[in-house]
Amino acid sequence: MSGPSRVIRSAAGGGCWRGVAPAQYKEPDQSHRGMTRHLLLAPTLGDDGLCIDVRYFEVAPGGYSSLERHHHAHAVIVLRGRGWVILDEQASELGAGDCVYVAPDTIHQFRAAPDEGLGFLCIVDSERDPAVAAGDEELARLRANPGIAQLLDSLAG
Amino acid sequence: MSGPSRVIRSAAGGGCWRGVAPAQYKEPDQSHRGMTRHLLLAPTLGDDGLCIDVRYFEVAPGGYSSLERHHHAHAVIVLRGRGWVILDEQASELGAGDCVYVAPDTIHQFRAAPDEGLGFLCIVDSERDPAVAAGDEELARLRANPGIAQLLDSLAG
Repeated sequence: MSGPSRVIRSAAGGGCWRGVAPAQYKEPDQSHRGMTRHLLLAPTLGDDGLCIDVRYFEVAPGGYSSLERHHHAHAVIVLRGRGWVILDEQASELGAGDCVYVAPDTIHQFRAAPDEGLGFLCIVDSERDPAVAAGDEELARLRANPGIAQLLDSLAG
Repeated sequence: MSGPSRVIRSAAGGGCWRGVAPAQYKEPDQSHRGMTRHLLLAPTLGDDGLCIDVRYFEVAPGGYSSLERHHHAHAVIVLRGRGWVILDEQASELGAGDCVYVAPDTIHQFRAAPDEGLGFLCIVDSERDPAVAAGDEELARLRANPGIAQLLDSLAG
């Protein structure tokens, strides 16, 4: 028996939804900053027949997600704000409406601009493997791109 | 071997993307009006590791999708505009940021306001059953709700 169809109302001009409490992104540690997570749609919420979780992440100005990789893919759509995504050795600016496909086993990180937050939907398989933090060798490889080194340093303080 | 990670850039202020051609929603018939479809992310585009297609639909003012049902579920996020969703005997207004879970076998239709379009992401299983149009009995059941009858009549002209 499926849960009923439902509408989840956007509230307060965007970035939050009625009945959806913002949750912790992960256990607090040095790998991430300024992240909140909203679980919008998921089988665990009764949304049967979906094979995915639809989450919304809000990154505060200057914040960033963990630099990590995993076997599952990400489908990302930016809803608001401005920032960057690191995809292995490449960094790309992001703004509202941009989509990102994060292929399996790609090291990736989402970062907000210093003076503006970044809000994005991130869609993943409901059943998925855990993320693994980028190791020292991988980090050295990414830092060989001066643009990425600058990003990692300029906003990490 | 997976396709590479990639960024799909929003263009022209939203509702279109670089390198993504708007496509026909379905074969033309009387069941729908003013719909265009953009396929943003999908395994058929090389986005391996995803089990879903991420599509964007734009409904022109006064337009509507087919009134139909299927076994697969929909995860919908409104990106812009204003309209309604019919979910069996219930109609709900929609605006930017609202999410909709369409449960399996729910008769549903997305409709734009008469004076404003409606643009939404619709995420579905990449492998899914075909849609079935609402039958006469189902339509009579929905029309028992005066709000739905009014919606179906006022915008169908």
